[in-house]
Amino acid sequence: MEDLAEKTVEVADRDILEVCLGLEHVADIVELLNEQEIEEQAHVLVHLPDERAIEVLDQPGLDDPAALIEALPAERALKLMAGMSSDRVADVFRYMDDPPRTDLLNRLDPETRASLDRLLSYPEDTAGALMTTEFVSVPSSWTVEQTLDHIRRVERTRETIYSVYVLDPKTRQLLKAVALRRLITADPKSSVLTAARFDKPITVAPTADREEVARLIAKYDLLAVPVVDDSMHVIGICTFDDIIDAIVAEGTEDAQKFGGMEALDDPYDQIGFWSMIKKRAGWLSVLLLGEMLTASAMQFFEGELEKAVVLTLFIPLIMSSGGNSGSQATSLLIRALALSEVKLKDWWRVALRELPTGVVLGAILGLIGIVRIVVWQKAGFYDYGPHWALLALTIGCALTAIVTFGSLTGSMLPFILKKVGFDPASASAPLVATLVDVTGLVIYFTVALVILRGTLL
Amino acid sequence: MEDLAEKTVEVADRDILEVCLGLEHVADIVELLNEQEIEEQAHVLVHLPDERAIEVLDQPGLDDPAALIEALPAERALKLMAGMSSDRVADVFRYMDDPPRTDLLNRLDPETRASLDRLLSYPEDTAGALMTTEFVSVPSSWTVEQTLDHIRRVERTRETIYSVYVLDPKTRQLLKAVALRRLITADPKSSVLTAARFDKPITVAPTADREEVARLIAKYDLLAVPVVDDSMHVIGICTFDDIIDAIVAEGTEDAQKFGGMEALDDPYDQIGFWSMIKKRAGWLSVLLLGEMLTASAMQFFEGELEKAVVLTLFIPLIMSSGGNSGSQATSLLIRALALSEVKLKDWWRVALRELPTGVVLGAILGLIGIVRIVVWQKAGFYDYGPHWALLALTIGCALTAIVTFGSLTGSMLPFILKKVGFDPASASAPLVATLVDVTGLVIYFTVALVILRGTLL
Repeated sequence: MEDLAEKTVEVADRDILEVCLGLEHVADIVELLNEQEIEEQAHVLVHLPDERAIEVLDQPGLDDPAALIEALPAERALKLMAGMSSDRVADVFRYMDDPPRTDLLNRLDPETRASLDRLLSYPEDTAGALMTTEFVSVPSSWTVEQTLDHIRRVERTRETIYSVYVLDPKTRQLLKAVALRRLITADPKSSVLTAARFDKPITVAPTADREEVARLIAKYDLLAVPVVDDSMHVIGICTFDDIIDAIVAEGTEDAQKFGGMEALDDPYDQIGFWSMIKKRAGWLSVLLLGEMLTASAMQFFEGELEKAVVLTLFIPLIMSSGGNSGSQATSLLIRALALSEVKLKDWWRVALRELPTGVVLGAILGLIGIVRIVVWQKAGFYDYGPHWALLALTIGCALTAIVTFGSLTGSMLPFILKKVGFDPASASAPLVATLVDVTGLVIYFTVALVILRGTLL
Repeated sequence: MEDLAEKTVEVADRDILEVCLGLEHVADIVELLNEQEIEEQAHVLVHLPDERAIEVLDQPGLDDPAALIEALPAERALKLMAGMSSDRVADVFRYMDDPPRTDLLNRLDPETRASLDRLLSYPEDTAGALMTTEFVSVPSSWTVEQTLDHIRRVERTRETIYSVYVLDPKTRQLLKAVALRRLITADPKSSVLTAARFDKPITVAPTADREEVARLIAKYDLLAVPVVDDSMHVIGICTFDDIIDAIVAEGTEDAQKFGGMEALDDPYDQIGFWSMIKKRAGWLSVLLLGEMLTASAMQFFEGELEKAVVLTLFIPLIMSSGGNSGSQATSLLIRALALSEVKLKDWWRVALRELPTGVVLGAILGLIGIVRIVVWQKAGFYDYGPHWALLALTIGCALTAIVTFGSLTGSMLPFILKKVGFDPASASAPLVATLVDVTGLVIYFTVALVILRGTLL
């Protein structure tokens, strides 16, 4: 890939077509095209043979297929779209701007148009939006041989032929799913149903989230999962390669949300400056407003602060420890919930586990905090005053309490979000830190008031 | 899945075998077994037919296959392992405790033992450790028909038959990869080579990281990628289902690391209490030691703090804003690097982009901070003293500077880690926050000294 990138820099613009024509794998052509301006991409596509151009447009790795198709002559665009897989064409229309969009839609043949309208009616990131309508289905009255002959005839126009869907000849309801590997080893004269391994095929509803599709594909090691409507008619299939892309995209979204921002919909190097600001400023502002409560909390303890400025020295350290332990617990539980390792109803088991975990972690940090103060005092690095021992005790106890509180809050936040209908992955490290900061300050000053009353305070 | 979980609770122990025998999909049996004790799991497995038991052990979803095999009678264990896929057997031995481990290893037949030793020699999470040795390969001198006949014969013992590897008849070097869909539509009498689509097959080295394997499979939409040694001999294949599992596991590891802890190797509900403490306490302690620098920084500004206690009110707010913007930038760049959207050499382009982004984000937050102080002062919620306007200016400028610094630090940290040979995903939200906190304090007090000298300070 490094080689390819360097090659791109070296070639002059007019040579790109030549390089693309010479490349064997369409994924490599796409990688090269992604580094070019749209006009240059269109120039290359116009000169590629139809079959190749369709393959290029079918690649999910292509950054902006909508813009590329808009840049092509309309006749060619229509011809190429007719050859593309239906899920991909739907994707393209989803992102196309309006003047060319309606124009192109109206010029599609009625059949393509109907299938497209259906795909476009499903919300993004659902099975219905991910699925393709190019699958192989046969009536259950056929033999294995008839089925194989049919597969040979339609192979070129199907996204996958490795899963074949057997339908009731009358109702066209899905009866079984048959793997090609079973078909080619089965007796050619026997019924296609004999090659089916399971009674009930695994299916998914068109409204299912892509995470659910991924879970089924991974759990049952499927190449494709059929998408069926309420009356068990197959309306499309989701294939493993779409799902790999979906899992990777989901991972990126979750990582960005956990980092405390809205998920970008585009790669980092392609999103515009102001879009980026928009995605980041929202949460930063909300978190800042949340953190303003810390200022209010500190105003409340102003008297204590003025009497014992030495207490302020440890504020950042104590607050960040609470935030850090909360961030750990949140990241753990977000994943555990996403992978169904724990379920919503397990919240109290998690709480019962995070409580002692938090106490032990807090005690470890508290001990380190106490050692720090004792060493600095005894070694003469800093003088914490006559009550330094009580101060050390305050820091130790406050750290224990705050880390416990942080672990508990951090672990419960994903459950609360899920319970009220949000994605648990919306719980971000900064959000947990902010929640814990305000309470952490109150805990710190309360502990200080209890231990230091009559001496420092 | 909810249904299944409820079913588990209902059935008495002795009925589990019955439920398992009745379940169609092996993934569902595995789900049920995972909720049982190992003894109960072994009890069920002993009563399952060999073929079914092998399928159960082959499922990556099974939580602890090593313990389960240890719990079986040795004879049965050996028989089942002989039928399991080689990558899975290797996985089992990787996690088996020693008394039964050596014993079982020594009783394997020499051929299985040799292939196992090779698989075990590759480090975890590499292509070599993920691969299976059950693939289909044929000499290039064969016809399509001969190849299909061979596939029909060996189908049951191969992990996948959808990719067939064509070898040089003499050197046994890999020449081409052929898809089954091409074979069944090709002329039966022609050479198997004519069904190959590409000149050069996509291959991977046994030492390649699983992320690299996932990238290739996703990019080229492969069902399997052949693992070849230096002289182009195929030593195994990595299939898409192993890779889906690997991508999910990688996502979990990255999320946990980003949350500021060591990656757990086991599901949340299965890891022991003290293992959990170990995975979390390390980073928490390191971060606490880092945060202690904030105490040192504040000791340095002790004089200023005593003169203007009002400054301390805004410390948590200002520090957390720097951490939050850093956390955003880090999560963005970790993913962008992982997905190769940006490369190591792009660091300065990223820096040039994060700098203005940080300034704008900082200015937005700074403005909010100023408004907060003005409103509180004017509305009489709090009296910030005669120099409240200058204080507001200090907060605004400090926020702008710290958010800019946070964005820049957060975005550069993954590059630095990658440059020095670490996983960029080791950069965690808490680590960035800690880095930014110390510098943030210095920035805050420096800004305060510049703006407030002669008035408050």
